[in-house]
Amino acid sequence: MDNMVYNFSAGPAMLPVEVMQQAQAEFRNFNGLGVSVMELSHRSSDFIAVATQAEQDLRDLMQIPDNYKVLFLQGGGRGQFAALAFNLMGKNAKADYIVTGQWSKSAIAEAEKVGTVRVLDGFGEAELTGEEQGPRPLAKEWDLDPTAAFVHYCINETVDGVEYPFVPKTGDVPLIADMSSTILSRPIDVTQFGLIYAGAQKNIGPSGLAVVIVREDLLDQACPQTPIIMDYAALAKADSMLNTPPTYAWYLAGLVFKWLKRQGGLTVMGERNKAKADLLYNYVDASNFYRNNVHTEARSWMNIPFQLQDESLNDAFLAQAKAAGLVALKGHRLVGGMRASVYNAMPIEGVQALVDFMDKFAKQHA
Amino acid sequence: MDNMVYNFSAGPAMLPVEVMQQAQAEFRNFNGLGVSVMELSHRSSDFIAVATQAEQDLRDLMQIPDNYKVLFLQGGGRGQFAALAFNLMGKNAKADYIVTGQWSKSAIAEAEKVGTVRVLDGFGEAELTGEEQGPRPLAKEWDLDPTAAFVHYCINETVDGVEYPFVPKTGDVPLIADMSSTILSRPIDVTQFGLIYAGAQKNIGPSGLAVVIVREDLLDQACPQTPIIMDYAALAKADSMLNTPPTYAWYLAGLVFKWLKRQGGLTVMGERNKAKADLLYNYVDASNFYRNNVHTEARSWMNIPFQLQDESLNDAFLAQAKAAGLVALKGHRLVGGMRASVYNAMPIEGVQALVDFMDKFAKQHA
Repeated sequence: MDNMVYNFSAGPAMLPVEVMQQAQAEFRNFNGLGVSVMELSHRSSDFIAVATQAEQDLRDLMQIPDNYKVLFLQGGGRGQFAALAFNLMGKNAKADYIVTGQWSKSAIAEAEKVGTVRVLDGFGEAELTGEEQGPRPLAKEWDLDPTAAFVHYCINETVDGVEYPFVPKTGDVPLIADMSSTILSRPIDVTQFGLIYAGAQKNIGPSGLAVVIVREDLLDQACPQTPIIMDYAALAKADSMLNTPPTYAWYLAGLVFKWLKRQGGLTVMGERNKAKADLLYNYVDASNFYRNNVHTEARSWMNIPFQLQDESLNDAFLAQAKAAGLVALKGHRLVGGMRASVYNAMPIEGVQALVDFMDKFAKQHA
Repeated sequence: MDNMVYNFSAGPAMLPVEVMQQAQAEFRNFNGLGVSVMELSHRSSDFIAVATQAEQDLRDLMQIPDNYKVLFLQGGGRGQFAALAFNLMGKNAKADYIVTGQWSKSAIAEAEKVGTVRVLDGFGEAELTGEEQGPRPLAKEWDLDPTAAFVHYCINETVDGVEYPFVPKTGDVPLIADMSSTILSRPIDVTQFGLIYAGAQKNIGPSGLAVVIVREDLLDQACPQTPIIMDYAALAKADSMLNTPPTYAWYLAGLVFKWLKRQGGLTVMGERNKAKADLLYNYVDASNFYRNNVHTEARSWMNIPFQLQDESLNDAFLAQAKAAGLVALKGHRLVGGMRASVYNAMPIEGVQALVDFMDKFAKQHA
């Protein structure tokens, strides 16, 4: 069973091998209790110890200040699209949303049910390259509304492979970030954000869990209609146990956080992730067989889309890759082509194996 | 590790031993794919096969007609308190809620954010027994509003140990049931309901999953503010994959459904559960040391609260029970005392072990 398969799924995604080994070993007997961690009451001291340690390890990894609450909630990123709007648009029902791809658009659809959204283009003017216009770089300034309740953006667009290498400046307006597919992949300064949220199924754990990091002063602005399972203030007060949390996902997240600490933390992970991304982008850029259409300043370290110049070879590429143990490389249905998601759990050996395969495939079909 | 521990947790709760053995064996290598089922994309054919089979097995077990949709959603019962109100109060924002305990009250709190709720007492008049009034039986008729959008009730109150042995008659008004802690424990006629929902963490699987069974004609009544992750019509159209579902919980639910089929289905489970409940209630009723205050017609087969006549012995009872491998017997914090949750996964041997222990403890402290 340990024939290595490299799983490039965008999420649910591969988890660290060590984490999965530990979880399997203690699956039916956690801490000698004779039961699985998923069979423990969330109110038992045994589970509360798991939950508390996971929060502390996340705080350590991200250096989360004390004036931020950390919530472990049911659901994923899309649930938080609605939750953040319900929570932050109760007193001031207008917000600015920067759009860089599919996920920022989906976030807007939820916020528009609660308040008024202004849509801001996340991209600036492209430089002209020869006769055609090249990819557009990220915009660095926007016509922001200083009276908006918040500015929302998606740091890493999983579908489009677009990632911010910088944090937008929004002055006194709280900045809200969808960090689903980039959280924990490199160091980030939490104090620049009013609220950070992430679905777990990329860099944190399995699907079914969302993590929210929210500055305490933003917890008094909820709409009266806010469902209690989305009410950050109520959830914070109950230590995320107002309702039954997704306990097994929370436990697995805790194992991932411990694993990250053992790796050396987010500085080390950032170096590794940059090396992985460089390896694949450099190969694609040097190739006439493959291409990536994202501006070099906006390229994701986590989700690397690439296209074959000859799209008629897509099925052959996917079939041969799978046979070589390189799975889930098909691009998102909205954009097609290929996509390699290379989250924290993907070792550089997996990226090297992919590049080697791509090169072999290109030579076969040159 | 197979020293048997009987886990009476109310949820998250014990899962069938066979299910947990299979899940552990294939934890890191599902179907020979070399990856965990939790590392599969929810859009992969491998996971869709898991999801589709689970739905079919649930349909078989409960004999769910074709004009009902079955949804596998993020979250739990409390999320559905809000979701059902958002989905069913868009055209007619008033509903009748029958109250029999803590969970029906919590459901009302969510519905009142969306529409107007009339609260109906779930209990009728108690018979007088000697000088004191005994426990109240369930009411069988209510002053229902024939123009309400729906009537809501909780079939089994996990905290209070109150269960309906009959289905309330509501005429043409759709009946909505919170079936979180009793679903799959005995046969039930789905056609009597407009909508059934259940958090998974009692009789279905781990926490983080909710199952909704909804009649198709009720899918056109949502409020415009309904968050997309709660929008039954949109979720049904996307086969519960509009957002990333809690894939591992869905997979485990599927294993539980297969296990239930192997046991002989819900008729067999109902017989077993009645035998388990009779064993414990009969012992308690015959005892002067323990008591249960629920009317005999309203006693839950799933959650059996009992009190020691001498409450000062509670801590000793719990400590000695735990030492005997009988864990999680502490009653809900709102009601105190003891509670034995005896869901499908609890074998009658576990209930017999509990009764034997209770008898020994009573004799020690008589």
